[in-house]
Amino acid sequence: MSEVIEKSRLAKQASLVVGSLTTEQKNKALLQMADHLIHRQKDIIAANQEDLRRGRENGLSESLLDRLALDEKRIAAMADGLRQVSELTDPVGDQLEQFERPNGLVVKKVRVPIGVIGMIYEARPNVTVDAAGLCLKTGNAVVLRGGSSALHSNSKIVEVLHEALEQTAIPANALQLISDPNRSSVDEMLKLNGLLDVIIPRGGAGLIQNVVNNATVPVIETGAGICHTYIDSEADPEMAVDIAINAKVQRPSVCNSMETLLLHKDYAQQHFPALADRFKAAGVELRGNETARNMVSWINPATEEDWSTEYNDYILAVKIVDSLDEAIDHIQKYGTMHSECIVTNNNQKASSFMQRVDAAAVYHNASTRFTDGFEFGFGAEIGISTQKLHARGPMGLPALTSTKYCIYGSGQIRS
Amino acid sequence: MSEVIEKSRLAKQASLVVGSLTTEQKNKALLQMADHLIHRQKDIIAANQEDLRRGRENGLSESLLDRLALDEKRIAAMADGLRQVSELTDPVGDQLEQFERPNGLVVKKVRVPIGVIGMIYEARPNVTVDAAGLCLKTGNAVVLRGGSSALHSNSKIVEVLHEALEQTAIPANALQLISDPNRSSVDEMLKLNGLLDVIIPRGGAGLIQNVVNNATVPVIETGAGICHTYIDSEADPEMAVDIAINAKVQRPSVCNSMETLLLHKDYAQQHFPALADRFKAAGVELRGNETARNMVSWINPATEEDWSTEYNDYILAVKIVDSLDEAIDHIQKYGTMHSECIVTNNNQKASSFMQRVDAAAVYHNASTRFTDGFEFGFGAEIGISTQKLHARGPMGLPALTSTKYCIYGSGQIRS
Repeated sequence: MSEVIEKSRLAKQASLVVGSLTTEQKNKALLQMADHLIHRQKDIIAANQEDLRRGRENGLSESLLDRLALDEKRIAAMADGLRQVSELTDPVGDQLEQFERPNGLVVKKVRVPIGVIGMIYEARPNVTVDAAGLCLKTGNAVVLRGGSSALHSNSKIVEVLHEALEQTAIPANALQLISDPNRSSVDEMLKLNGLLDVIIPRGGAGLIQNVVNNATVPVIETGAGICHTYIDSEADPEMAVDIAINAKVQRPSVCNSMETLLLHKDYAQQHFPALADRFKAAGVELRGNETARNMVSWINPATEEDWSTEYNDYILAVKIVDSLDEAIDHIQKYGTMHSECIVTNNNQKASSFMQRVDAAAVYHNASTRFTDGFEFGFGAEIGISTQKLHARGPMGLPALTSTKYCIYGSGQIRS
Repeated sequence: MSEVIEKSRLAKQASLVVGSLTTEQKNKALLQMADHLIHRQKDIIAANQEDLRRGRENGLSESLLDRLALDEKRIAAMADGLRQVSELTDPVGDQLEQFERPNGLVVKKVRVPIGVIGMIYEARPNVTVDAAGLCLKTGNAVVLRGGSSALHSNSKIVEVLHEALEQTAIPANALQLISDPNRSSVDEMLKLNGLLDVIIPRGGAGLIQNVVNNATVPVIETGAGICHTYIDSEADPEMAVDIAINAKVQRPSVCNSMETLLLHKDYAQQHFPALADRFKAAGVELRGNETARNMVSWINPATEEDWSTEYNDYILAVKIVDSLDEAIDHIQKYGTMHSECIVTNNNQKASSFMQRVDAAAVYHNASTRFTDGFEFGFGAEIGISTQKLHARGPMGLPALTSTKYCIYGSGQIRS
């Protein structure tokens, strides 16, 4: 039996146990996990050093090495994350609906764990701890498949968490890490219907596309964000600048940052030259359509490809449009249904934008950077769904649950 | 451009229109569709005759021909279905959550249409009308791919519905029927990410497995039901017989009927011989494990395969078990997470069964035959989901919606 099948079977068995624990039992286990991470931090850092050494040998970029690196501060942050999750409301067991039928049947719809969650992700070892905490808190078992570059760190972290779980009600088997660094272990997970109930990919576009294209297990697609900000002719000019700059440069590498700026021609006529200077000063390369380049001669031309590129970098595509309709059409054509914003003081236009733009999060007069489980007050986030089924937008604990109908009768039969 | 891509593109464009219509506009269109079906029933019946003629030529079974056949009564029932859907509450626009963040951002979570729904189904032409009604009522466009044996009926029905829509606010393009009877049109739909937002398969196990195994578009799996009834040692004997007989014979061909009967040994000792006679009288073939055959010598032996077979027929597998735990383990191993029942007067055992059995619907003292959108009072049903994501169990109108976060700010930026 392959490692993936064996560990997924163990996880499935364990899911029956963890799914029936009380909130108190699960919280106690999370706190134990947090304490033990701190207690064993030297060993975790030593394992991480080995990953970093190999990473340097393999020529990983400095930014990737930085994402991979663990120190006492980062381990403390991981432990704090577990403690915070322990304080969140447990959605499992919540009764969502109750109704009685004319024949006397009482139907209750309750939240239940999903079962076994497969996580496929890349280099950051903190995802290992985050995902373990969120999945276990919601009564699920989890099968983790992290990136091979973090294998030593992840293995040590899971070893430490297993030790912690030995002293708790959660069976250690509810947390599984695939240690086979080959691509074939991913392929195997993607087809494991019956053992895995869902796969959540987190990482770059290539990883996510591979999962979406090849999984037969249901997937929650996360991540890709080609986000737009549309500045209307009736925008407050100062607010527009603040929002546009923030959406682009506050953290360009993340999915909810802006990739394309759409400017109404009347706004652009008056304000684009100054705004372009602001972007330039912030180190942002601008690529514009012809109208934009007629207004600001020094910006680069945008090609068709620019409208559908998630730069995650200090590059911004700019398009001057004739109308709200043209802005919405552009978003509909090139957006990834993640986060979209309109800046305007005209409430009617805002309401039309909010209603017609099809995205997980639609903003009136605020930066798209707020699309985030913590910013929404969920206290945690397993990812940001960009699909329309099950969960859409930032996913907190309820996104890791399913439902079940419990029907109470007194001998009812169907006629 | 292939027919599938062309029609899906038209559907996607039309989805933007139908998604923003008022409930009144959509209801008026549904009533128009109903009226026009009646008005054009002669033409629909003539087209159906052509399908039936070809069906006979191709040697379709009598039961399939019966499912395919349309007459005035069945067309009236389809029209009534549309009228009923017009009377249901429209979930689109419902505000599910609203909260204000410390920074003043107001976040609202609202129900929105999914977008474009792909339906892949088999011979019954009434699914064409049902699916059209449910999808349009919830502001979605729909691309239908029915079975080739019903192609003439489905084409005529959609032609008639298109005529009806011409006089309404719903664009006719929101309803598309794929007329290519080849398997390749199904294969193409399964990969149409970006144009189709979800695929819902309805039909036999082969159709559903093909969709689940090959789709890259998100799927809502429906249908397969290996449902169990467990009769506990503390069951009311009369109630147990009524429920077991009803679950098996009231309509054996459907997914919520019982396929395996689990009997506690103490109950079985006293009551199985009489119960077996009742099944025999109802024309049900029994296949039992060894213990069962020791109690009732004339029943056939059950093989391992019987425990995982959805007969949809007058055949029942019977297993005598030693305990509640053994019953739950059996269900966990062989069930399809559809509908499961315990008959007992012991509330503690019932509650343990309800909590531990992982299925869309779990019953205490009632027939599994109630797992149905109409029986639950939803007024409609697009299918019964046997997966855990998005929707589980009977799917009414809300299952055909997604959500969107609308965030209202006054210039907030992230620090």
